[in-house]
Amino acid sequence: MNPDVIPALSVGWTPLYPSPSLEEKWGLSEVWIKDDGRNPTASFKDRASSVAVVKALEKKVQTVTAASTGNAASSWSAFTALAGLPTYIFVPKSAPKAKLTQLLLYGANVLQVDGTYDDAFDLCCQAAEKWGWYNRSTAINPYLGEGKKTGALEICEQLQWNVPDYVFVAVGDGCILQGTWKGFKDFHAAGLIDRLPKLVGVQAAGSAPLVKAWESGQPVCEPMVPETVADSISVGVPRDQVKALRAIRESEGQFIAVSDAEILTAMRNLAHTVGVFAEPAGATAFAGLTKLAETGGCPGQARVVAMITGNGLKDIEGAMKAVTAQPMLVQNSLADVEAAIR
Amino acid sequence: MNPDVIPALSVGWTPLYPSPSLEEKWGLSEVWIKDDGRNPTASFKDRASSVAVVKALEKKVQTVTAASTGNAASSWSAFTALAGLPTYIFVPKSAPKAKLTQLLLYGANVLQVDGTYDDAFDLCCQAAEKWGWYNRSTAINPYLGEGKKTGALEICEQLQWNVPDYVFVAVGDGCILQGTWKGFKDFHAAGLIDRLPKLVGVQAAGSAPLVKAWESGQPVCEPMVPETVADSISVGVPRDQVKALRAIRESEGQFIAVSDAEILTAMRNLAHTVGVFAEPAGATAFAGLTKLAETGGCPGQARVVAMITGNGLKDIEGAMKAVTAQPMLVQNSLADVEAAIR
Repeated sequence: MNPDVIPALSVGWTPLYPSPSLEEKWGLSEVWIKDDGRNPTASFKDRASSVAVVKALEKKVQTVTAASTGNAASSWSAFTALAGLPTYIFVPKSAPKAKLTQLLLYGANVLQVDGTYDDAFDLCCQAAEKWGWYNRSTAINPYLGEGKKTGALEICEQLQWNVPDYVFVAVGDGCILQGTWKGFKDFHAAGLIDRLPKLVGVQAAGSAPLVKAWESGQPVCEPMVPETVADSISVGVPRDQVKALRAIRESEGQFIAVSDAEILTAMRNLAHTVGVFAEPAGATAFAGLTKLAETGGCPGQARVVAMITGNGLKDIEGAMKAVTAQPMLVQNSLADVEAAIR
Repeated sequence: MNPDVIPALSVGWTPLYPSPSLEEKWGLSEVWIKDDGRNPTASFKDRASSVAVVKALEKKVQTVTAASTGNAASSWSAFTALAGLPTYIFVPKSAPKAKLTQLLLYGANVLQVDGTYDDAFDLCCQAAEKWGWYNRSTAINPYLGEGKKTGALEICEQLQWNVPDYVFVAVGDGCILQGTWKGFKDFHAAGLIDRLPKLVGVQAAGSAPLVKAWESGQPVCEPMVPETVADSISVGVPRDQVKALRAIRESEGQFIAVSDAEILTAMRNLAHTVGVFAEPAGATAFAGLTKLAETGGCPGQARVVAMITGNGLKDIEGAMKAVTAQPMLVQNSLADVEAAIR
């Protein structure tokens, strides 16, 4: 084991910010924002990568892999670089150059597949099978949930074991939702907390197969062609759908959908009121909280947490869509500044 | 005072990563990497903004301002949004859209001046004077150093009061360098540490007026037209030059220059060996450490720290310049993958 891997595993707690102004505005007892954009590679995915890289080292694998175009891939590439493990990342042909850049800078071998994300995913699994590569692809690797559950564990400790009433989580494949539920259940089984929260799974309306399955009582989702500004949760066939549906049912929570406009508004409000700059998928849980709070869906005096899963710097194009104001163009004179700001 | 401001002030410690592989490679006793890209808005500047916003609230100012196109502006906009303070940011006409986006998302009023950065800076100071706005512009506000010194204080505590021999800091205006020196001096004066480190100020060769002044023994810099990939330290007239030169002389350290090629190599090596993705200016201190370590400029068994001042996600265009590998294009077949990876 490369000793350099040790410090990276000290992912550390991410902040849990209170928001007295939102509590007052919405008539809620406590509003907490968990900023997981503060993780080492700026997304929640580091929680899963930190566990997966330890398992890969334990198994003494020689090579690792994953299919992804986004946060999971850059997170995995950072952790495996540190562990000295050769890494193959499968991405679809359409992967944007900015995301490829981060992977290449970490030293990953990037395979750009002439096909869709589903093609890249399947090819990655075939390659892992054929050459014995350790596979971090979402919903394939059972240890990822053990990393993802740490978000819930931290919330319990940060709130001094006083479990919140509602926890809002953005949902694409459903892995973070199921991991979060496992965290609360594990602490409950261990007797460290005395009750469980209701989970609220928030999907983008243009990519909401789980909302539909839940509303209609189906055990699995109908596939759909996703279309949303929140690229990290733009998923037509959620790969962890069974566990995600079970988490919502067991917790007596709910799935809700928010529009792209609601997500972009949430990005602005989150930046203005809590100082957190989130990517669109990162602000989606907050959009769901906003929607429920403003339509009376959260009982007064409830204590709520919204999980922010990724930093806005991950997607500047997405952030540009959320901006409504424009810079004021001024000449180099104080008179011109005065005219502009009046 | 808006109670929401309190959590943001809990900036928290940034990680200090050891690197056993670099210690072995360079024959040094200890190599530490301080990742200040993990601050709330992903740069060292949050240390200064967190102090400045408290002072602004103490003074009960109604409006705040700053001139900057980069990390200081986005940091200031986040903290002042949280404090509920109206904010005017002055930027030059050339400011890139991505940087403007972050400012606008935080709700800052952005004044884009038809002129250079120097024009924007002077106009900001005039406006602050005329309308009584609280000014966070670099080297104007004396409290910023009190925030910047906290990086040095953390290093002392994280190393259990065992002061390192060398601390490498990237230098543009020189504010971080002088703040770092103040931190060590304050702890030394308080008797909490028993010695002081040598500071190494690292400038980009294309923007190195302090290196020239130091080498020729001048008390101040000759202005120059800066040209470097490291935009955050691209400064022709360092606004904190007197304090920066004094810090290097008092600490018996040195200024050194690194080329853009050395900075880009440092970005790759830092990502590969320590898992830290830095912007070009953020990797400049590490480039300086690399240069000194590889040319015998650090005595064997030295204990060294390099300060990484900003996250690579701040400047994806810069990161693209650091990437030398390319994605492998493959058809959707395992045979094609096998051919590509052989």
